[in-house]
Order: sequence, then C-alpha cells, then structure tokens
Amino acid sequence: MSRRPLTDAVGGTFTPAVAALEAFVLRGGKRVRPAFAWTGWLGAGGDPAGPDAAAVLRACSALELVQACALVHDDIIDSSRTRRGHPTLHVEFAAQHRAGDWSGEPAKFGESIAILLGDLALSWADDMIRESGVDAAGQVRLGPVWSAMRTEVLGGQYLDVSTEVTADESVAAALRINRYKTAAYTIERPLHLGAAVAGADADLIDAYREFGTDIGIAFQLRDDLLGVFGDPAVTGKPSGDDLREGKRTVLFAEALLRADATDPAAAELLRRSIGADLGEDQVERLRGLITDLGAVDEVERRIAELTASGLRALDDSSAVPAAKAGLREMALAATRRSA
Amino acid sequence: MSRRPLTDAVGGTFTPAVAALEAFVLRGGKRVRPAFAWTGWLGAGGDPAGPDAAAVLRACSALELVQACALVHDDIIDSSRTRRGHPTLHVEFAAQHRAGDWSGEPAKFGESIAILLGDLALSWADDMIRESGVDAAGQVRLGPVWSAMRTEVLGGQYLDVSTEVTADESVAAALRINRYKTAAYTIERPLHLGAAVAGADADLIDAYREFGTDIGIAFQLRDDLLGVFGDPAVTGKPSGDDLREGKRTVLFAEALLRADATDPAAAELLRRSIGADLGEDQVERLRGLITDLGAVDEVERRIAELTASGLRALDDSSAVPAAKAGLREMALAATRRSA
Repeated sequence: MSRRPLTDAVGGTFTPAVAALEAFVLRGGKRVRPAFAWTGWLGAGGDPAGPDAAAVLRACSALELVQACALVHDDIIDSSRTRRGHPTLHVEFAAQHRAGDWSGEPAKFGESIAILLGDLALSWADDMIRESGVDAAGQVRLGPVWSAMRTEVLGGQYLDVSTEVTADESVAAALRINRYKTAAYTIERPLHLGAAVAGADADLIDAYREFGTDIGIAFQLRDDLLGVFGDPAVTGKPSGDDLREGKRTVLFAEALLRADATDPAAAELLRRSIGADLGEDQVERLRGLITDLGAVDEVERRIAELTASGLRALDDSSAVPAAKAGLREMALAATRRSA
Repeated sequence: MSRRPLTDAVGGTFTPAVAALEAFVLRGGKRVRPAFAWTGWLGAGGDPAGPDAAAVLRACSALELVQACALVHDDIIDSSRTRRGHPTLHVEFAAQHRAGDWSGEPAKFGESIAILLGDLALSWADDMIRESGVDAAGQVRLGPVWSAMRTEVLGGQYLDVSTEVTADESVAAALRINRYKTAAYTIERPLHLGAAVAGADADLIDAYREFGTDIGIAFQLRDDLLGVFGDPAVTGKPSGDDLREGKRTVLFAEALLRADATDPAAAELLRRSIGADLGEDQVERLRGLITDLGAVDEVERRIAELTASGLRALDDSSAVPAAKAGLREMALAATRRSA
C-alpha cells in the first residue's frame, strides 16, 4: 500500500514531512503486535503458503501504524527527547525550525507537526486494513476487534496521564492502565485480530484472550521491574527512570501499600521521591527500600502466576501445535526478558 | 453506533472524558460536510425513503467525527481558547487540572488529554463508517475517497502550519492550503463520498469534484475576506483576527504581490504587521491599504469566477434536479455569506 500519489498531490513541504514519518516507522521497533496477530492467525489454522497469506500479513502490519501514532503522540505527552536511538519526531521538527530560523516557537512547531503526523499514521493504519485484501467477510469479523483495540489503547493512555497528575496510588489504578495500555493493545487484541481474520471459533478466541491478557500484564510488570532495577547498558534507558518520571506502576503501588502498613517513614520517602529529580544514590536507596518492603517479591510472584495461567490457557486451547510453541516462546521472552 | 460498552469497560476517569468529547461533538457546528455528502448521495439517485438511507446517513455523519479530531487538534496547534462559544477541549481540561490542584502543568495536561481525545474521535470516525450498514460493495467504493479525504486535510493542515512559520508569501502556497485544507475536505470529497456510496458514474463524480473544488476554494476566499473585513457582531470573532494570527491567506498574498510591484512602503508595513499584536486603528489602516491595493477586488473577482464555473459544472451534470437545486443554494450560501 502506498500513499505516495495522494501525498504528492498535496505536495509542497508535505512530501518531505511524510518521508520523515516513513523513516520513523521503518526505523524499527520489535514489531511485537504484528507478530502476535500473525501467529494468532497461524494458530487458528491460517496457511502461510495459502492464497490469503499476503492479505493477512498486510492487515497485521497495520498494527505498526497504530503504534507509530501512539509513540509519536506519547512522546509529545511525555516530553521524550529520543526514541529508537533517534530524536523523537517533535524534537526533530523543532530542530528544523531552529535551523531554518523560522518565525514562532520551535518547540510549538515541532509538537504541531508531530500531532498531525501521528494523525496521519492513524488514518493510514485504517487505510491499510481496508486495502489489505482481506475479504468482506474477514473485514466484518475483524472490525469489532480493530475498533476495541484502538479505543482501549487510547483509554489506557488517558488513564496513564490522568493517574499521574492525580497521584492515584492504588494498585487497582496501576493494574487498569497496565491492562488497557499494554496487555490488551500489545497481545490480547492482536491475537484476537489474527484469530478473527482466520474465522476462529469462540473457544480459541477466549483462550487467546485469556493468554494475551495474562501474558500482557506480566510483560508490563517485568517492564516495571526493569524501569527501576534494569541495567542501563541493557535497557538503553537511564537506571531508575520510572521513579524520576513519576510513573505509577504496580511495583510502586505495592511498595507504598506495604510501607503505609508497616513503615510510615518509608512511605513518606517514597511519596517525596516519586517524580523528583533523583541522583543515583537516591535511586539506589529507593531500590533497596522497594525490595525490603517485599514489593519486588510480590511483583515476581504475580508475573509467575500470570505466566503460568496464560500458558495453561494456551496449552488447553485448540491452536495448532507450531503456533502454540511459537506463542509459548514469545510469552517467555516477554516475561523473562532483561531489556 | 455507541462506543459506550467499550469505554465503560476501560472505565476509571476515561468515562467522564469521553462524555466531554461527546458533548463537544453534539454541541454543534453547521454539519456542512455530512450535508454535502448526503446531498451528493441524493443527487446520484439515492432514495431518502429507501432501505439504504439510514446506513448512508450514518456514513455521512462519520465526517463530523473526523471534523471533531481536526478541530480539537487544530485548537491545540493554534492555541485557541474558545470554540463554538465554549472553552476548547485543551483549555477545559487545563481548568480541571487547576481546579483539582493536581501535580504538573495544567496547560501540558490539557493538551495531552486533547491529543488523546482527538485521536479517539478519528478512530471512531472510522468505526462509524465501518459499522454504518453500507454494504460491502459500497464500502469498497467509498474506501479510496475516505482515505484521500483524511490524507488531504492533514496535508492541508500541515502546509498551513509550515507556511505560517516559513512566512511563504506566494499566492500559490495560500491557494494550495485552501485547496486541501478547505475545498477538498469540506465540499469536494464529501460530495464524492456520497456519490461513491450511491454508485454514481464517472461523469457525475467528475462534475461533483469540479463543483466542490471551485465552490470550496471560493468559500475559503470569502472566509479570508471576513477574517479581515467581517463584522465581529456577525462573525463572532474579533475583527481583523486573521491579520493578528499571521494567517497567510490568498487575500494577504495578493495585497503583498501588488504592494511589492507598486508601493514598497506599503509592502514593508504589511510584512511588519502580519502576526503582530495590532490595535483596532492599525487593523483599520491595513484594511484600507489592502482595499486600495486592489486585493479585495481581485479576491471578489476570483470568488465570482469560481462560483460561476462551479455552478456551471453542477448545471451540466446528471445530478437529479432537487439535489441540484439544493447544492446551488448551499454553494451560494457558502460563497455569499457574511458570517
């Protein structure tokens, strides 16, 4: 699918801007969502050598364009400066503005352009589904899943932004964000989408969704641990970044819950530190505290439990064996990873 | 179509936010785009009492959700404070933040939420087309038009932002923005969409597109005149707003072109004034200057010419008479309006 004739028709400075968006999408990322969708289709009996395979692959790839919108807009919201080893889009366009000595505020210009390019990616995701070649019956089956996935991820992002400013400290709030921003969007709905295109029965879809929700939540819990304890050389992010950014993770909520019950001074320190500009020694102290409070053990316990229940749902399902093995491997990679 | 079950499932603070978006969409606006799409369908022989009418009406209404995204995101980009007599969405959420005494920057929070709610409206626009009830053959016909319309309006907005900061002074640049941001998006593509759903032949589609492009450009040229000469009591905007905002309109480009050729001091004054914080007497002086340079006459001439050629294309078309009459009336209202 190419939008080139359309974007060239608009022309002017729009053409190089579209090239910047294309470079952003092609630059990489792990293609996790398309991989789950594709494996979901295979597991429901899709034939990778069959006549539908190319169309299904295109439909799965559309998930990468939704993700491009989510990243570009999230980077504005989080004021992130780098992404995938490059400047974020809004930073890139602010730099262009500065280099050109244009009128107005460079930062404002960068954000405006990034808002529009994110919208473009979201529109194109939809075009790509529509033009994938998946037949009319398949489009009808995938429609509600596609719809749910986009509303859920936007809802999850909304809750994330809202929870951060209201400083909602509950484990429930952190789990809700985790469920919609990560689990549903990254694993559950991509698998569901692949299954729907394949015309899978309700039992397999239920099994996929159970697997996807459990593994997806476990994946985010692992990410929460890495955000505080990860090795910067492996994760590529400064150590303890989640604490400095004030992220309301399940890990942090668990630590706070325990501190409130047993150690008021520790609770006070946690509340004072979250979202603050912390030095390495302060981060180290918080790490010790979070561990001593038992929050790490609790999160590890949840990861193990969710991984086990997710894999059980997969094992008991009617998914074809090769896809089952693939999904098991993907699940373990997602929940045991160190980066 | 209701997204309520989906948004309620996400829950938390997402539910009231969705209500704010719904209120924004329902609050009004002139529903110009759905009206053109619907009339385009009628003109191509669609039967308003027939079995397809309800589905087509839903598909036409989806244009209003694209417009909601465009407005919400444009209001962030333009730092607009009010819209349709209410605070803009980003201003509304910044006020909530302030009232709740939450952590972080109110303005940043408001913009973040408005980015996400705009994305939600864009996703829902697509859901609405998909779930409209238009049959598979109709979906295939409308797909490329729906796709072109969204890419074009985003391209037009992109050019608008980019032209403003680079201070591109050409009439061509202003016309290009006008073509994609307004004409294609407001009239040409909505009509085309309605015609495509009805299965219109290529001749009628060509005639609609010619009519839509000409009338759409004329509509924006009228808007440009009102942005400088309009009566605030009628337009609802401060007089001379386009000059203060630094909008690079065809009107301004024509004035500058003439001033450069005949009156360097006038050209210097125009360049110094555009985008500046002007008092009412300064705006009045610029009005006189723009008129004396002949730019107003030139823009009026273009409006008359485009209106005539657009109406000719309509008259010569095979559109059914009642729809023809309706479109003629809509064209005259759009190009002669005083607000």
